[in-house]
Amino acid sequence: MDRLPGFRDFYPEPLPHKDLWSADLRHHIFSRWRATAESYGFREYDGPPLEPLELFTIKSGDEIVGQLYNFVDKGDRSIALRPEMTPTLARMVAAQERAYKKPFKWFSIPQLFRYERQQKGRLREHFQLNCDIIGETDSAADAELIALLIDSLRALGLTAEDFVIRLSSRNAWQDFFALRCPDESRAYEFYQVIDKIDRTAPEESDKKLDELGFSGTEVRDFIAAGKPTDELKSIIDNIGARGLGDFIKVDYGVIRGLAYYTGPVFEAFDRKGEFRAIAGGGRYNHLIKLVSGGKIDLPALGFGMGDVVLSELLKARNLVPEFGNRIAVFVLIEDEASRSDSLGLVQFLREAGVSTDFSLTPMKGNKQFKRASELGAKFTARLESSQPGAARVQLKNLNTREERTLAPEELVAAIQSAG
Amino acid sequence: MDRLPGFRDFYPEPLPHKDLWSADLRHHIFSRWRATAESYGFREYDGPPLEPLELFTIKSGDEIVGQLYNFVDKGDRSIALRPEMTPTLARMVAAQERAYKKPFKWFSIPQLFRYERQQKGRLREHFQLNCDIIGETDSAADAELIALLIDSLRALGLTAEDFVIRLSSRNAWQDFFALRCPDESRAYEFYQVIDKIDRTAPEESDKKLDELGFSGTEVRDFIAAGKPTDELKSIIDNIGARGLGDFIKVDYGVIRGLAYYTGPVFEAFDRKGEFRAIAGGGRYNHLIKLVSGGKIDLPALGFGMGDVVLSELLKARNLVPEFGNRIAVFVLIEDEASRSDSLGLVQFLREAGVSTDFSLTPMKGNKQFKRASELGAKFTARLESSQPGAARVQLKNLNTREERTLAPEELVAAIQSAG
Repeated sequence: MDRLPGFRDFYPEPLPHKDLWSADLRHHIFSRWRATAESYGFREYDGPPLEPLELFTIKSGDEIVGQLYNFVDKGDRSIALRPEMTPTLARMVAAQERAYKKPFKWFSIPQLFRYERQQKGRLREHFQLNCDIIGETDSAADAELIALLIDSLRALGLTAEDFVIRLSSRNAWQDFFALRCPDESRAYEFYQVIDKIDRTAPEESDKKLDELGFSGTEVRDFIAAGKPTDELKSIIDNIGARGLGDFIKVDYGVIRGLAYYTGPVFEAFDRKGEFRAIAGGGRYNHLIKLVSGGKIDLPALGFGMGDVVLSELLKARNLVPEFGNRIAVFVLIEDEASRSDSLGLVQFLREAGVSTDFSLTPMKGNKQFKRASELGAKFTARLESSQPGAARVQLKNLNTREERTLAPEELVAAIQSAG
Repeated sequence: MDRLPGFRDFYPEPLPHKDLWSADLRHHIFSRWRATAESYGFREYDGPPLEPLELFTIKSGDEIVGQLYNFVDKGDRSIALRPEMTPTLARMVAAQERAYKKPFKWFSIPQLFRYERQQKGRLREHFQLNCDIIGETDSAADAELIALLIDSLRALGLTAEDFVIRLSSRNAWQDFFALRCPDESRAYEFYQVIDKIDRTAPEESDKKLDELGFSGTEVRDFIAAGKPTDELKSIIDNIGARGLGDFIKVDYGVIRGLAYYTGPVFEAFDRKGEFRAIAGGGRYNHLIKLVSGGKIDLPALGFGMGDVVLSELLKARNLVPEFGNRIAVFVLIEDEASRSDSLGLVQFLREAGVSTDFSLTPMKGNKQFKRASELGAKFTARLESSQPGAARVQLKNLNTREERTLAPEELVAAIQSAG
């Protein structure tokens, strides 16, 4: 029996083969994401992986709706597996915002789902770091959010040579659009053309732009000029003051596909252009009002960064750490008469937070040693004497081969000092 | 717009009201679970939250099937949201077991789903720590697994006065059954009666037992005697050698509802009997063979511990930590001319792993101070001089009110030494 197409299993390292997904790499990414978000004062939230379908259809671009993983449940409700986190966040904020002083900064690491026609290697789920700031109109919030995005990638070892944030503005594009086309209802259609302009044949884009009353040339000139608005300038200055100026540039070729963005928008790309976008986000000042049925009106902005493209990028840049040392100590039980006392030693080490393993059943000494090495143990420990008050343990460092005989209370320090 | 019935949102502390679920408490529980499992040398895995329906119907008791959250997807597949993790684990193990040396020990913290008729306060999802040992028939593995269960609860502050593991044996019950009833196909029916005996009126249980050819008296006498099998004795001795003997007792009133258990089974209960079972598990030596269509035959055992009963128990026993200090440092910007340099200080602290916040927009000094205190900051920091090479920062401990003026490179140590 096999898993569903487009879904992933995550196995422990070392992986049997390279096309499997690593639970250890996933944990490494999640840990760095969490630590960086917390260093910025972002607080964790989460919502259900299932939501009423309506939450996503109320104001998502048509593109998202066609990709929804939706179904009817046993209670005849229309349900969708969440394709993105922002509508859930907006729903949660609308319900409880009064209790949280503005602006507030929240993060989450949800699993998200979509149901597209199956393509080779295309996944139907991924995990995504979501970071949002609620209740601040000033562009200082946009800068804070983008700095967090940059530092989340830096925390994984990526540098300004590896990635760049392409900063753009829905406002700039809206002004561009309004100057040339009086029919505001067609703005989203126009944004969709811009969103795909890099991936579309020029003639095709030109044709669509022409229908909307634009020339391909004027659009491309506007992108090429890349003249920052005052708002973008202040974001760039703020990022520069943090010493992160090398990580950002204005690029009006970015506009973001979703309908709900209102102000600055941005995407993170690898510099070599080998991968799809690593992350993307922007302002969505009207979404909370919409989701709350007009009751709550709060400015907001956020970004999402998925684990799939990021994992590929980390592998390509050799930034996946070795997951070699999987336990700290393997307790050797060479004499079965000492098993009971050795179990006490195992328990003592584990209670001190030292990851410890041993052979559950009787095993020859050299086999136990082999097992210790297979498990990536840093040390072996063997009970030499279990006399009450005078217990002695032989501790061997498997890297340096150094052996020492210690009292149990000296063990933890000796193990920890070896890093 | 509201969330689906039976699902939870998780909010950051401090919570607006007590009936909301805390993302911080959830993270606290997950962290302790993970740390304990890792200290035992268990390695993380995960599978998809959706699986083919067949994976769960192949050999679950009827009870589970009636509760499944299942549906038909856009590709006409019968799908279920996973109600338990063990079938997914068995599927994953069957696919890749050759690469992992036996026995191996794995853990996961999946979200699980069920769709029962909605009852007041009854949830349709929960998170569950799953720990399993694959490839070991010896009861030393059962003892190792139960010790991990005990220590996972101890890591959250619970003691032998708070909970106990009730240890039982499908083997013991099978022998009891086989001696009195020749029709092996009715054994599972019998187990179901035993499983519910504590929660059922005696007359009702007696009637059902009578139909199966048993008397209620002989069943109750067998439970009351609680005579451990040799296998259970060796588990209890092993747990005792670890100094955990106070946490376990034989109780044949436990049998576990699921069909696939084969050997020792156990459940964790609060001593006062106020809550449903905290955790439960046991041996399932035939499940992997079944899921792999007979290809792979590996003995296995595991337990699951949910977050809902556990959260209730921790609250009732006053073991939920204060989530008061949510950031370490709030950087005060009293003079807007220093904002740019102060952003540099913020960045410096965050890069050192110090959780740091500040006011995104200009704000009066006393308001910034109030904000720092609302965020639970331990310190405020104010840039006194940003002269290159001679920068000075005033650091104030908000608990002790102590103020010191330090060079940036002295800051991190001063902050960390205050715990």
